[in-house]
Amino acid sequence: MTAVHDDITMHIEGRHAAILEDFQALLRIPSISALPTHDADTLRAADYVLGMLRKANLEHVQRIETDGKPLLYADWLHAPGRPTVLLYAHYDVQPVDPRSEWNSDPFAPVIEDDYIIARGACDDKNNLTAIIHATAALLAEGTLPVNVRFLIEGEEESSGEAIEAYVRAHAQELASDIVLIADGGIAGHDQPQLEYGCRGMVYVELIARGSQRDLHSGTYGGNAPNPLFALATIIAGLKKPDGTITIPGLMKTVRPPSEAEWANWRKQIPRFEADMAADMGTPLVGDPVQSPIMRAWAQPTLEVHGFVGGFQDDGSKTVIPAEAKVKLSLRLVPDQDPAQVLKLLQKRVAKLTPPGITTEIVNLGMGMPFFTDPTSPAFKASVQALGAEFEKEVWLARAGGSVPIATTLQTVLGADTVMVGFGLENDGAHGPNEHTHLPTFFRGVRSFARMLRAFGEIPGAH
Amino acid sequence: MTAVHDDITMHIEGRHAAILEDFQALLRIPSISALPTHDADTLRAADYVLGMLRKANLEHVQRIETDGKPLLYADWLHAPGRPTVLLYAHYDVQPVDPRSEWNSDPFAPVIEDDYIIARGACDDKNNLTAIIHATAALLAEGTLPVNVRFLIEGEEESSGEAIEAYVRAHAQELASDIVLIADGGIAGHDQPQLEYGCRGMVYVELIARGSQRDLHSGTYGGNAPNPLFALATIIAGLKKPDGTITIPGLMKTVRPPSEAEWANWRKQIPRFEADMAADMGTPLVGDPVQSPIMRAWAQPTLEVHGFVGGFQDDGSKTVIPAEAKVKLSLRLVPDQDPAQVLKLLQKRVAKLTPPGITTEIVNLGMGMPFFTDPTSPAFKASVQALGAEFEKEVWLARAGGSVPIATTLQTVLGADTVMVGFGLENDGAHGPNEHTHLPTFFRGVRSFARMLRAFGEIPGAH
Repeated sequence: MTAVHDDITMHIEGRHAAILEDFQALLRIPSISALPTHDADTLRAADYVLGMLRKANLEHVQRIETDGKPLLYADWLHAPGRPTVLLYAHYDVQPVDPRSEWNSDPFAPVIEDDYIIARGACDDKNNLTAIIHATAALLAEGTLPVNVRFLIEGEEESSGEAIEAYVRAHAQELASDIVLIADGGIAGHDQPQLEYGCRGMVYVELIARGSQRDLHSGTYGGNAPNPLFALATIIAGLKKPDGTITIPGLMKTVRPPSEAEWANWRKQIPRFEADMAADMGTPLVGDPVQSPIMRAWAQPTLEVHGFVGGFQDDGSKTVIPAEAKVKLSLRLVPDQDPAQVLKLLQKRVAKLTPPGITTEIVNLGMGMPFFTDPTSPAFKASVQALGAEFEKEVWLARAGGSVPIATTLQTVLGADTVMVGFGLENDGAHGPNEHTHLPTFFRGVRSFARMLRAFGEIPGAH
Repeated sequence: MTAVHDDITMHIEGRHAAILEDFQALLRIPSISALPTHDADTLRAADYVLGMLRKANLEHVQRIETDGKPLLYADWLHAPGRPTVLLYAHYDVQPVDPRSEWNSDPFAPVIEDDYIIARGACDDKNNLTAIIHATAALLAEGTLPVNVRFLIEGEEESSGEAIEAYVRAHAQELASDIVLIADGGIAGHDQPQLEYGCRGMVYVELIARGSQRDLHSGTYGGNAPNPLFALATIIAGLKKPDGTITIPGLMKTVRPPSEAEWANWRKQIPRFEADMAADMGTPLVGDPVQSPIMRAWAQPTLEVHGFVGGFQDDGSKTVIPAEAKVKLSLRLVPDQDPAQVLKLLQKRVAKLTPPGITTEIVNLGMGMPFFTDPTSPAFKASVQALGAEFEKEVWLARAGGSVPIATTLQTVLGADTVMVGFGLENDGAHGPNEHTHLPTFFRGVRSFARMLRAFGEIPGAH
């Protein structure tokens, strides 16, 4: 095996300049999908990626128009008897605000020491560039060990609606044995990691309504229903101050982690907790019955994201608003169903609503939790490939975040699904001065090539 | 008595056109003290009022410069042996937003049926115009039955700081026996009312801080301190869902209303409750141990005015903010001291603050509760004058709102203080389409003249 892998390593090393050129060119395009003023940029990024796919000698390279941002498709299906791998990444990025906290132009990539700094450097133009160039290197070297389909989207950082609809409508054409989600993270630059699960989500706006107009607190205070106080009461009633969620029935559907999972997690606990505490600048808090890693990976959480309503400016105004809203989300774990959790939440909120107030829950988005079998052949092949590249044992982890498209691809295509990526938690994805570690980025290119090779060696996968 | 009073009535009726002209001219000036873009307008309004004072044949008419908006002073002190009355009103108004909810230009007064519609029509250009013209009518008729000092301010709707400082520094020059605050309300167009108390206030911003930067709820949810959740918990802990405040020690200093007060309030309960429910469009809610009129007039209340922090826009963002704030106020009753209540609040908040969160309370304003003896000669004279004008029993009431200047004038000058005004609760003070009932406005002019006459008949007041 080492001979072949050394070939890939050498071949990719010979292409570093070309890979870096594409990476930087992509980073220069402000493809912010959430902002309509950047629609033309987002299309430019899509076209640039189409060019990369063509240069890689992929076939059927095409822009698929949708109601939102276009999807990009390409394939190479000339490895009969070998598995078909669907490769997913996204070409859009988050907005850059607060702009004032950036030390350089977010769309003029700067290289400092081993790092490249730009919006999208760690989420997800690094992984996008890496999977295309890994495939290009293998094709240029001779042939691909697997069949591949690229499906790349441009609204992962906004709605994600186009790809959801497309996958459901075109399951046959996308038929694949393995899905590789190139949009994950790594535990450390020296510590490879594979995530076999992440959390589902219910994101709602909870609206409370009281009187028919805003009121003066002097005249009406003490006699008027106050929607802001009602929302505070409801939120406080959904969780104890220590973090325990108090929604009846919510915990019943939680699948406990297996002994094998725990065995893996135990090794990661010190680093996980130390990194998180350092990043927050405070000790970890939460449900005292659970350990922090359990709270992040294997338990549902409920968080408040914003209160909207009443007086928001500087100074004092004595208003009792007629209406107020709170944004909140629940992160879900296997085997929790978002629709069912939404019902439990509605029931609990109705019970907590104080007199004089009516409440309404608006569903702003739901996603299934993702879970894949870490003993599946595709997963084990991924572990082997990453371990060889990093020369280190791969940590098996779950993630606290949500990647709804992973679950959709997994269930609609019935494929083994693997998530992998090469950004670190403190690389500043979504924040100012987002960056990535260039040696780890190139290691990512090599890792993807090794994974495709490893998938090709799975016997009888197709 | 009737002959004299009929003279005033006739004299004022003869001046209706001139009074209305001044009222409308004042309403046309957008003297919004909170908005620096209207500073020139506020000065124009001040100058217009100075002109009115001069035309009334008052003496020592002057603009007193301050760090804020100017104060206006005038006097007439030629009634030896009679009491001196300090007449207070304000020439500034609230901002007009939401402008879109006005049916006409807020500064182009419109008369429809018996109503005049404009910003300031009910708060406080009506009462300001009325007290000056009542004085002018008496002077024009012959002489004043009392000595008068006008002290008119231009920042009642913003900070109110200038007059507070001025009164404290110039107590000797302002020496008076009676203070008449021409900035109150009436129970109904047919129902005269005198307020002998209103509530004090502590207005604070409560800040909660968690981690050192905003966090992603997927990665950190369940392990990070959430300042928004902390604030919800604290707010919910300050009051039970039924409205009872749970700050230890707060109720100890509440002076219960006397039997005589209750006897007066009982008559007012049906109208009070019906008006409030109609205005809110919901039933009244609150501390079940107290009746609504007690909750509004004789009990402290705690209200939340706004939550600031986290995600405020449309859509969903899964942020756990590093910091969040809530604006809240307590209305206080005799004998509650704002500084002491602030300490009780701080202690309670510290106790309710959940792990991982630090809280800070920023004092945004305090005011003493106001209370005056309804059996004092000045108060009884006011009751008699209003009763004669309306030919109806005057209701004695307290108010839920706060008029800090009343307490300052009362305590610094050691004067009997009476609050009176002719706006109705549903006249829309501070809101869109503010208006006043013109026949009631002219009744206000006559009432002020009757009050000055009645003050003049108090034996040995000086």
